[in-house]
Amino acid sequence: MVRSRKIFSLLTLLSSLSHGANARELFGVRDDLHFSLGARQANKDGSVPAYKDPNASIEDRIDDLLPRMSLEEKVAQLIQGDINGWMDMSNPLDNTLTHNESGLDHMLNTRAGSIWAGYQTPWEKFVYAITVGQKYLMENTTLGIPALIQSEGLHGFTNNGTIFPSPIGLGASFDSQLIHDIADVVAKEAEGLGINHIFAPVLDLARELRWGRIEEGFGESPYLTGELGYAYVHGLQDGSRRNASTTATARMAATCKHFAAFGSPQGGLNIAQVSGGERELRTTYLPPFKRACLDALSIMTAYSSYDGIPAVANHLSVVQLRKEWGYKYWVTCDAGSIDLQISTHFTCDTRECAAKAALENGLSGEMGGGTYTYETLTQQVKDGRVDVKFIDETVKYLLRTKFSLGLFENPFPYADYLSTLRTPASHAVLQRADRETIVLLENKNNVLPLSKDIGSIALIGPQANRVSFGDYVFFNATHNAISPLEGFRQHLLGISSSTKVNFAQGTELWSNDQAGFPEAVKTAQNSDVAIVMVGTWTLDQTLLWTPGTNATTGEARDQSDLGLVGAQLELVKAIQSTGKPTIVVYVTGKPVAEPWIKDNVDAIVHQFYPGEYGGRALAEIIFGDVNPSGRLSVSVPRDVGTTPIFYNYLKGSRPSGNPGAILGDGALHFGNQYVLNNPSPLWGFGHGLSYTTFEYSNLEVSPSNVDGTADSISVSVTITNTGSRSGKEVVQVYATDDRSSVVTPNQELVGFSKVDIDPGKSEKVTIGVKLHDLGLWSRDNEWVVEPGTFTIKVGTSDQTYQNATLTVT
Amino acid sequence: MVRSRKIFSLLTLLSSLSHGANARELFGVRDDLHFSLGARQANKDGSVPAYKDPNASIEDRIDDLLPRMSLEEKVAQLIQGDINGWMDMSNPLDNTLTHNESGLDHMLNTRAGSIWAGYQTPWEKFVYAITVGQKYLMENTTLGIPALIQSEGLHGFTNNGTIFPSPIGLGASFDSQLIHDIADVVAKEAEGLGINHIFAPVLDLARELRWGRIEEGFGESPYLTGELGYAYVHGLQDGSRRNASTTATARMAATCKHFAAFGSPQGGLNIAQVSGGERELRTTYLPPFKRACLDALSIMTAYSSYDGIPAVANHLSVVQLRKEWGYKYWVTCDAGSIDLQISTHFTCDTRECAAKAALENGLSGEMGGGTYTYETLTQQVKDGRVDVKFIDETVKYLLRTKFSLGLFENPFPYADYLSTLRTPASHAVLQRADRETIVLLENKNNVLPLSKDIGSIALIGPQANRVSFGDYVFFNATHNAISPLEGFRQHLLGISSSTKVNFAQGTELWSNDQAGFPEAVKTAQNSDVAIVMVGTWTLDQTLLWTPGTNATTGEARDQSDLGLVGAQLELVKAIQSTGKPTIVVYVTGKPVAEPWIKDNVDAIVHQFYPGEYGGRALAEIIFGDVNPSGRLSVSVPRDVGTTPIFYNYLKGSRPSGNPGAILGDGALHFGNQYVLNNPSPLWGFGHGLSYTTFEYSNLEVSPSNVDGTADSISVSVTITNTGSRSGKEVVQVYATDDRSSVVTPNQELVGFSKVDIDPGKSEKVTIGVKLHDLGLWSRDNEWVVEPGTFTIKVGTSDQTYQNATLTVT
Repeated sequence: MVRSRKIFSLLTLLSSLSHGANARELFGVRDDLHFSLGARQANKDGSVPAYKDPNASIEDRIDDLLPRMSLEEKVAQLIQGDINGWMDMSNPLDNTLTHNESGLDHMLNTRAGSIWAGYQTPWEKFVYAITVGQKYLMENTTLGIPALIQSEGLHGFTNNGTIFPSPIGLGASFDSQLIHDIADVVAKEAEGLGINHIFAPVLDLARELRWGRIEEGFGESPYLTGELGYAYVHGLQDGSRRNASTTATARMAATCKHFAAFGSPQGGLNIAQVSGGERELRTTYLPPFKRACLDALSIMTAYSSYDGIPAVANHLSVVQLRKEWGYKYWVTCDAGSIDLQISTHFTCDTRECAAKAALENGLSGEMGGGTYTYETLTQQVKDGRVDVKFIDETVKYLLRTKFSLGLFENPFPYADYLSTLRTPASHAVLQRADRETIVLLENKNNVLPLSKDIGSIALIGPQANRVSFGDYVFFNATHNAISPLEGFRQHLLGISSSTKVNFAQGTELWSNDQAGFPEAVKTAQNSDVAIVMVGTWTLDQTLLWTPGTNATTGEARDQSDLGLVGAQLELVKAIQSTGKPTIVVYVTGKPVAEPWIKDNVDAIVHQFYPGEYGGRALAEIIFGDVNPSGRLSVSVPRDVGTTPIFYNYLKGSRPSGNPGAILGDGALHFGNQYVLNNPSPLWGFGHGLSYTTFEYSNLEVSPSNVDGTADSISVSVTITNTGSRSGKEVVQVYATDDRSSVVTPNQELVGFSKVDIDPGKSEKVTIGVKLHDLGLWSRDNEWVVEPGTFTIKVGTSDQTYQNATLTVT
Repeated sequence: MVRSRKIFSLLTLLSSLSHGANARELFGVRDDLHFSLGARQANKDGSVPAYKDPNASIEDRIDDLLPRMSLEEKVAQLIQGDINGWMDMSNPLDNTLTHNESGLDHMLNTRAGSIWAGYQTPWEKFVYAITVGQKYLMENTTLGIPALIQSEGLHGFTNNGTIFPSPIGLGASFDSQLIHDIADVVAKEAEGLGINHIFAPVLDLARELRWGRIEEGFGESPYLTGELGYAYVHGLQDGSRRNASTTATARMAATCKHFAAFGSPQGGLNIAQVSGGERELRTTYLPPFKRACLDALSIMTAYSSYDGIPAVANHLSVVQLRKEWGYKYWVTCDAGSIDLQISTHFTCDTRECAAKAALENGLSGEMGGGTYTYETLTQQVKDGRVDVKFIDETVKYLLRTKFSLGLFENPFPYADYLSTLRTPASHAVLQRADRETIVLLENKNNVLPLSKDIGSIALIGPQANRVSFGDYVFFNATHNAISPLEGFRQHLLGISSSTKVNFAQGTELWSNDQAGFPEAVKTAQNSDVAIVMVGTWTLDQTLLWTPGTNATTGEARDQSDLGLVGAQLELVKAIQSTGKPTIVVYVTGKPVAEPWIKDNVDAIVHQFYPGEYGGRALAEIIFGDVNPSGRLSVSVPRDVGTTPIFYNYLKGSRPSGNPGAILGDGALHFGNQYVLNNPSPLWGFGHGLSYTTFEYSNLEVSPSNVDGTADSISVSVTITNTGSRSGKEVVQVYATDDRSSVVTPNQELVGFSKVDIDPGKSEKVTIGVKLHDLGLWSRDNEWVVEPGTFTIKVGTSDQTYQNATLTVT
């Protein structure tokens, strides 16, 4: 949930905003604040307390500051405030640069630690609002503690920043550097505007595909999610804010979410409980967090319960994060989730209980959206019901995050914020992202790429003349994007092609109405090839929470069926039946379970919800100007009834019974598991075709015999581009613990590398595999790498190109 | 799995067997053995060892016997043998009363503790085989330890005993006494033939409806399953074998299976892993076992793993069963499951490892069907790899089961076994069972019951002229049963009705062929009412494991879809479109997810796989000679994609988002959870209509304020039959822990009572509720009943007739 849903009204917004005057001129935003640091930060007697000394160590500053804080000031740090406390944020078009002084006073004396600023609003007003708030904190409060200023940035900074493909698509890039670079753009765009805290990345795993939020994560693999999550965290964080102290370690606080196991809600229903034991938690759900988040300046807890314990009050947060991992930064709950203990989980009947349970078990702060249960903490401490040590410890985590950002030296927006927004460099990253995330699923008889000399193409279907972004973008963000129809036209113009583009929508995404079919069929018949674009859709964070809207994916839009909605499948069938070469393009936030399409069309391209360049990138792929290199970050089931489908199921959990099938003519072929279906995926995790071909040779594991205490091994393999054009291959390394004391996954991705190879060339690719990733959670509740053999394979989750044995002694 | 699949060949079998001469005459089975006990059991020097003293305590006998046993004898006790070791059981028709002496010798010196006798074979041969085996053990072995003789009896003794409805239907009876009486019949039929160990009841919960074995359990409720399981265990066990020692406590060993959590395999795939934590295990999966099985003389472990630990080697078996519950009887694994550690779970690479892991962690015996890994134990003990204490402890459990059966006094079949098979008394129980288990789901405008003066009825559909038993019956068991078509004819004759029965099959269960539709439609048009019988089907234990057969339910027949297979739905639609009153009868092993049928037909009757009297009972219900009183033991989903559907979901796990729908005309009504569907059931657990009506009043909880250490409370409510005919109401009591320290189920059945009330009469029904059943597994890992309020309601899982508050202090 994002809080914006309660605040945004349904207004139209200019798709791009520009400003004649900037905030600097209006109220003196300065980036030369460092020159006056000493003066500003000195106490009235001229002394500079240690916590204001930019040269002091972070720990010394925390230790100096905490004892100076009153109980009320500490509690205020733990409760998220909102910029709307002093600015009217109700109208995204409004650019009035005035604020409410009494609101500012109230907000920043009671909810001062972190401030929600996730609004679509003119940049100028945004900067004004943040500046006013931070100035108040720095100059009008006793201790001058700046606030975290928070917004969303799952796949682009949400206040009119550059929007990249949804994370499920970013997962398909298998490109850590790309993910890092995207996060870097997100942070740069946000940083200048005064944001210092982004609620990303999502590390939930795509194991329950009905869930609406599948698109927000990097896919089903704990390893891939951990690696890309790490890249995203560091892409957001690495660097320094301007004029920060030398001890600062990050320029932006990332937020790993949702801790933990949030992505497997029962029935696929958002926030529903998750069933699982400690071994599954340790084996599957925690590794991405452990990999990606130890340096992340914040972590957000989940809404759900795990084995009956609400995540906000799960003591495992303390045990795992704090004690085992030594995590020392800020943990926040999700919006209003502490109240769920009262309203949903019924584990508390009072706000006092809810606050105490969350604080003591989670050592976390409270995000708004609820009843601000933490307001009760002050009195509870006074009454002896809550030990102040829990508050102190939690405040220290928050202060550590702030000092690590260097906020005490300069918490303000930058005067030249326009210079870091929507830059050509950012656009170059966007292009890479949209190109790398498209997956070529099928390409029968090499129907793709199309020749630029082809006479005409038919673009058909409800996704053709539409931009389908994933969720976690703000109102009208799609206005910055290129639709497929426009993308094809631009591209053909760019390559001086005279190919004619014929368009017919055929049907709406949300309808069974087939009235447009005849026109669509005719359009296909009149063209040399038909490209049918179908899929799922979601809405921006304003519309998604507006009653009466429709969407098939996104937060709290959970599906009971994974096939195409409405008349879309019938449209594909109608076009295919024309006999024209038929290419289906899925634009979706999750896998599409349509075996008929796999069996019957000529090519299938899967574009997970793209970024702003998506329509153009699609044309580049279809015409072969870009060679597709995306690989599925999530397995594709035949049917919702055959889920879960993830590749790393525990041994013994996909019995090799003979599958059944309902044949094309309706004939029933009976099997046993399933009786009339097949538990194997249409396409497995890691699958994706190229316009060239690759051969694998010389797989080597080095050393092939290793002590269990070793750090890592190397897997090297030679990849030869045996086709006629350059292309990128995603080399995937999977490991299987051949025999283990507990049941382990039948395989687990443990390494990958994306390499670009020219035709006829070979490259030796070496991939490090951490021994830790070969471990298991033992019967004795320890993470151990057991002696024995491990099968190391290169290939995809359901194909083995080569394999070798690693022996651990 | 039952081992019979490997042994039975596909032969036809006479549907009933009778014998001119009985086994007594052939080889001297005696029921006057007690007269010669002293002589037979004395050692050669005339002394009687304590273990052979029928008057000694069971513990003394065990303590005397165990030290006399060699290591080899102990290990032999732990490995299941098979009657086929000395008898040719390959042909179910064969009645040759000869055995293989060397086979007998080998089998009973190596696999002597328990003997699989689960064969369809003439009773005479059966008795011969068992007698030969037990005589050998009693007279030709050093210590004279009789064997457990084992067969199946989930819903009827499988060697041509009386077959009752499948357990899922027995669950729908909500009648503990009936379940007890059924089990009593099963035991009586088996006992006379020499069986002393029955592999029933199944206590797996119907929480994953794709699973093929749903029909084998009593439904989705832990409480109902526990209560009916308890009744089944005691129905099987209560009583004494003839001439048993006075210390014997049971006449038959029941087997609670499958321990534990087996019924929730991932993806619904048989034997797949189960995800869950200790709280879910304690809250949901263990209570039925704890309730039903502490007195059961055996328990069988599951095939699956739970949170990564294979059930056969799950130390929780020892911790929970042995230490916490003090369970002191025999635990066996399921057929071949110890080998799964090698072949499926990959937790062992040798038979030695598999045997050691299962023995030490599970203290269980080994059932055949695998590689007899326990054969390695002797050498492993000699080598010091396995401590003999584990073997001793396990053997003691087995001996305790045998002494508790009084087997050492008389392990033989009874000469008059025919007198306890298929008796009129058994038939009366069968009638009750088939009548009580039918559930009336819908009855629009009281279209049912039909008048016996109605001119004609059409019986249509592939279930009309067919007997669909559930699994765990033996070859050709259906030959003893009355089909619906025959049942209607018999019934109408019985009530002197002149109603004409028209029949048309319309389609096959396993086909999309609609060639029979026109005839079916015509049959409906020519009749006054149409009864369309559709559903699922399974096969007997011979055919089910025969390659090339088809079935949609039963062991290892897992479905990815819960709708009707083939042309069945279309047949219903075709009949309904005639305009004739249309009654649908489901004959199935699991819920049918067909919302269209609910919305569009006039009445729906659900007959879970019936017993032999099922066709007749159905006619009695349809014509109102019996008033339906079954209640759903399992919730019915709209679609597989909306599962799980069980009523006792944890709080917060069915968010109250607005559901969507695909309307009848194809129009899409968008909601959010689910986008186009609804997570609420078509009919919830406990639902079922009657031909009369009941009103609830005067709900009282007594005491309404109780100390948490109290044993139980009483819930009383007055039920008034407000209709015009007698009927049975199932009074259901549900409890909700209003606030709890961990997340608890939104409701849980905690009591029920089935009462028969005449029209216009009222009855005060008092139901005891155990406080223990209001408990939870705390954060501190204890089962506690927490102080606070509990909402006590009477109604069904989705209807509240009255509620009250219980306060626990």
